[in-house]
Amino acid sequence: MNNHQSTPEQTRLERGKHALAEIDGEAGEKVIEALADIAPDFSRYLLEFAFGDIYSRPGLGLREREIATIAALTALGNARPQLEVHIEAALNVGVSRDEITETIMQMAVYAGFPAALNGLFAAKAVFAARSPL
Amino acid sequence: MNNHQSTPEQTRLERGKHALAEIDGEAGEKVIEALADIAPDFSRYLLEFAFGDIYSRPGLGLREREIATIAALTALGNARPQLEVHIEAALNVGVSRDEITETIMQMAVYAGFPAALNGLFAAKAVFAARSPL
Amino acid sequence: MNNHQSTPEQTRLERGKHALAEIDGEAGEKVIEALADIAPDFSRYLLEFAFGDIYSRPGLGLREREIATIAALTALGNARPQLEVHIEAALNVGVSRDEITETIMQMAVYAGFPAALNGLFAAKAVFAARSPL
Amino acid sequence: MNNHQSTPEQTRLERGKHALAEIDGEAGEKVIEALADIAPDFSRYLLEFAFGDIYSRPGLGLREREIATIAALTALGNARPQLEVHIEAALNVGVSRDEITETIMQMAVYAGFPAALNGLFAAKAVFAARSPL
Amino acid sequence: MNNHQSTPEQTRLERGKHALAEIDGEAGEKVIEALADIAPDFSRYLLEFAFGDIYSRPGLGLREREIATIAALTALGNARPQLEVHIEAALNVGVSRDEITETIMQMAVYAGFPAALNGLFAAKAVFAARSPL
Amino acid sequence: MNNHQSTPEQTRLERGKHALAEIDGEAGEKVIEALADIAPDFSRYLLEFAFGDIYSRPGLGLREREIATIAALTALGNARPQLEVHIEAALNVGVSRDEITETIMQMAVYAGFPAALNGLFAAKAVFAARSPL
Repeated sequence: MNNHQSTPEQTRLERGKHALAEIDGEAGEKVIEALADIAPDFSRYLLEFAFGDIYSRPGLGLREREIATIAALTALGNARPQLEVHIEAALNVGVSRDEITETIMQMAVYAGFPAALNGLFAAKAVFAARSPL
Repeated sequence: MNNHQSTPEQTRLERGKHALAEIDGEAGEKVIEALADIAPDFSRYLLEFAFGDIYSRPGLGLREREIATIAALTALGNARPQLEVHIEAALNVGVSRDEITETIMQMAVYAGFPAALNGLFAAKAVFAARSPL
Repeated sequence: MNNHQSTPEQTRLERGKHALAEIDGEAGEKVIEALADIAPDFSRYLLEFAFGDIYSRPGLGLREREIATIAALTALGNARPQLEVHIEAALNVGVSRDEITETIMQMAVYAGFPAALNGLFAAKAVFAARSPL
Repeated sequence: MNNHQSTPEQTRLERGKHALAEIDGEAGEKVIEALADIAPDFSRYLLEFAFGDIYSRPGLGLREREIATIAALTALGNARPQLEVHIEAALNVGVSRDEITETIMQMAVYAGFPAALNGLFAAKAVFAARSPL
Repeated sequence: MNNHQSTPEQTRLERGKHALAEIDGEAGEKVIEALADIAPDFSRYLLEFAFGDIYSRPGLGLREREIATIAALTALGNARPQLEVHIEAALNVGVSRDEITETIMQMAVYAGFPAALNGLFAAKAVFAARSPL
Repeated sequence: MNNHQSTPEQTRLERGKHALAEIDGEAGEKVIEALADIAPDFSRYLLEFAFGDIYSRPGLGLREREIATIAALTALGNARPQLEVHIEAALNVGVSRDEITETIMQMAVYAGFPAALNGLFAAKAVFAARSPL
């Protein structure tokens, strides 16, 4: 799984769109659509900065990036929709279900059991929507 | 880098001590010592649960576990000493300086620029203490 | 838009009720009602301290106060109902829809994209309930 | 109300199951069941560490432990299901409805009014499910 | 240990001053002094609302109130000076050192080990300043 | 006070540098320098995204933007250095000392008294460094 390193002629927006499609898939597209009538520029920043700049950097694999994001969102515990998108994304870039649940369980040590429990229930919902556990 | 899977005859405490030594090294020992006169049982829980139970599980590599921890502690932004211990720990288990800074920079997307900046300055301090940047 | 500076003869409760009505309107009243059977004194503190003391102080305009509140609640990300009440309140005291979305978008810098996204979706819901976007 | 101090022959798991049953009752059992197909080991950690180790320690009464937990979960504001479980648990170990609402109201001072409001509404829901207010 | 229930003729400010003196002692006074040149009205709100209104309510004992506050501030992990003041305050109203460390240790379950560790080190500092451990 | 709207020929980086200089002044420059040896690209993102994109948008005044940032950083309570930079920045763009302390005091309502107290002490330090209170 390669990161999305820019070719010189690609714009940040193009690179971000490409990265979002590969990482978040359909769930990412829905977020972009949902922003269209309230803050279309914010979609652009999400694509350009988050995906075109950060996720496209070569120094860390996408698998590790998604593990980091799942860890952070589980620990913060206040962004369930985005946590679900990134559990989906982690599966898309080759993180296994087991690795996802291990990452979330580990958050009990750093953010407490309720954060980890709520993360596990988010994973359960995403896994179940893809295929029976 | 293998995880610390239990052999049947190892107690959780022994397994945790072994894992702590390998992962956190000297910094981990200092935490245990600092707890001795205020809450010695808490050292035991840290060793048994965090290291003996969680970090010793086979389903996720130690490199990924440390990336997850750095991500979470950077995002939470309220545990600088523990973040420094785990930046050190990440280096101990084979995460590169670049991978650490990438993980922290990514947190700007999930927890904002101040959290990422403070994480980068923690990394800068740990890296500098080991050897010049 | 004037703040609710006390006239000498007004009690904190009266001043708070007046400020709540002007700022939060119907949404504020519903909160007071919802507290009636569980913690009626808490309604009083909300009226007296939050509205009678703080919002009635002359040193900062109500427009700025609502921008500050929207920023904080978006950044904290764990109080959606109150964020919606204050998006409504901001509109009531003359903050424009654009200024509200700008405030929320800016929180991506300080609290991350998920916090800002969830804030934007709260604004979208409030705006849509008032009139089509 | 005694804490669940271990008898020598009890395992941590047995002690934890006993403590969970007494403290959380049916709500605790449901959490354990919900974890069965996603992370069964996590149930075990919850029982062993949270209930077998921490809640079974003799140095603090169960009433005080539940007050502490309600305070923390109200202040954090990102774990509503667990807050409801512990409001239930507090009632189970002899904390009165008044003491619960006092604890939550006090959180307005330490974590703000929205956190306290959302905690009060959680208490209202739990109280109402048990018997009319 | 009685709470500071108002006598009819006491103002909120008087009641708050009395409660602050009994609960926080010298540490509370220092906070009031430190605010004098930046926000003197804020001292008044702290005395009137936090101490005159909330801590003076009869429905929960001061011991329980301080346990709740220590739990919340440990869990939030971003207010070390106030946590130290309330560890001191807890001792002032009859909470034992053991009960304080138990309360803080329990926060590992709800807010993670780093929050609990930093809380324990705050307690260690306060205890040591009073008398050797 | 105008925002930094792009002229067509300005790059995001140029626009961001210009905005940072006007808003954060010397304090902003120091952050950029401090990043030079650990994560120089992160400086660029800070300049391009935070200042070149967000702060340069025309829909909200710089005064309001700084009030929003101070509110958020006070409420989050885990980014003291950045809070100080933005108290300085607020003064630079015409927010008065009174408006700053009002904004911070208001955070007692949304994030609790400790967050507001620590914000006020940050303001006190910044004000004192500029000129005696």
